[in-house]
Amino acid sequence: MNKLVGADLFFKCENFQKTGAFKARGAVNTVLQLSSNIESVVTHSSGNHGAALAWATGLREMKSYVVVPTDASSFKRRNMERYGATLIDCGQELESRVSVLQDFLAKHDATFIHPYDDARIIAGQGSATIELLESECNLDQIWVPVGGGGLASGAILAANGNVEVVCAEPELARDAYLSMQAGCRQPPLPPVTIADGLRSSLGELNFSILRAAKTTVALATEVSIKRAVRLVFEMMKVVIEPSAAVVVAAMLENPSLVANRVGTILSGGNVPCPQQFD
Amino acid sequence: MNKLVGADLFFKCENFQKTGAFKARGAVNTVLQLSSNIESVVTHSSGNHGAALAWATGLREMKSYVVVPTDASSFKRRNMERYGATLIDCGQELESRVSVLQDFLAKHDATFIHPYDDARIIAGQGSATIELLESECNLDQIWVPVGGGGLASGAILAANGNVEVVCAEPELARDAYLSMQAGCRQPPLPPVTIADGLRSSLGELNFSILRAAKTTVALATEVSIKRAVRLVFEMMKVVIEPSAAVVVAAMLENPSLVANRVGTILSGGNVPCPQQFD
Repeated sequence: MNKLVGADLFFKCENFQKTGAFKARGAVNTVLQLSSNIESVVTHSSGNHGAALAWATGLREMKSYVVVPTDASSFKRRNMERYGATLIDCGQELESRVSVLQDFLAKHDATFIHPYDDARIIAGQGSATIELLESECNLDQIWVPVGGGGLASGAILAANGNVEVVCAEPELARDAYLSMQAGCRQPPLPPVTIADGLRSSLGELNFSILRAAKTTVALATEVSIKRAVRLVFEMMKVVIEPSAAVVVAAMLENPSLVANRVGTILSGGNVPCPQQFD
Repeated sequence: MNKLVGADLFFKCENFQKTGAFKARGAVNTVLQLSSNIESVVTHSSGNHGAALAWATGLREMKSYVVVPTDASSFKRRNMERYGATLIDCGQELESRVSVLQDFLAKHDATFIHPYDDARIIAGQGSATIELLESECNLDQIWVPVGGGGLASGAILAANGNVEVVCAEPELARDAYLSMQAGCRQPPLPPVTIADGLRSSLGELNFSILRAAKTTVALATEVSIKRAVRLVFEMMKVVIEPSAAVVVAAMLENPSLVANRVGTILSGGNVPCPQQFD
């Protein structure tokens, strides 16, 4: 991989994290700060934040509800249910998610936890970068995927200007890229990328952190994302989901942006084992 | 996984090893002991030993030839060639392999390195168990797959009677199981198990070490081997090949044989990424 990318790579394997993704960090950091009289929380998620929140609320014996698009991965649905979440279906588009969530909140006494536009979530996700920097790899750059921006903005705060943070985004979901160019948040593109965890639009707090750091956003095509899943599978023997492969794909597509000693956060590994092994 | 198996499991991930399998250990230990006037080595392999030998000989600028069954995995063939091996086709059965190898040795000045029935290979493979024991997991048992017996006999020597070594074998390739029952080496069964690295028959030196230790051999069915590949993929996000999954499968099928704190050697991960990610 070092030869292919032309850099010394150091991987932070958040696919090995509890619930299979970095999302466990922000969820537990948030849930542990909730008042003890809260009985239920609700969020929206394509899967990983939902599973993380279900796991974290389970530690405090709270209930969790997750608004999930009907086209979400069945593997991720099962993962959320395994950790105790109650799923509520919504449509694929942003409007449907918002209306289903508001409807739920109007009828239930539940606390909404935003999946990324929340300082507690951002702080939790930033702990992955803190650990990466503490590992003494002498990094001069860190690459993270950007969807809503929880992981990315947490990384920027954790790096604190000492190490550059580069964001990787699917070309088909390049609202962070367009937002950085325009200087203001741009609307999300249709949720069609294979990187299902990165379909959401950049959050407000998240954007302000990316913008203040003048963050570079590098794009990855769908073909290169799939190729990166394969490379990591075959060369590193590590299972990552397409949303995690976006960083490897973006590095391969943008070699001029890659520094010498690069930390790479592999954000999650929640994909089913293909039928070939059945 | 701990809950499923009913034990505290500690995995030695030899799929993360150079060349993607534990075989790198025995190969490098052997090649570094060869006289410097040797220019070429030859072996027979379904893939992992061949790739390991090619990698190890490359360190000393020697040439490597590998006799490979025509039905060997194309992924493993490419892996061997990537490390510089020259492949020589043979049929699937033992007789064909032996005759092709003898024919090659009659015509070429090359040193034969047996894939497992060799003290240098066994000592090298044993280093995986030494590292596992040095990791201070307070193990009371180690499970390893058994095919030719290089890894298994190395583990037994490394454990030195302090920790029990249990061997896991595909039911369809249970010549080690039958050999232990009979008290003498039994012929190999037809090479049909999905665990392609374990189709070979138990070596002579290897059998003598297993027998002296009164080693238990636990069997795994094909269905459970495939299920174990899936479990490790989905729960641990780690890519293992079926030959490695045999230990997990055998533990699940033989719970009464499993101790409390169990070291498990995941022997390799040389499988192609399925087309789902193409």
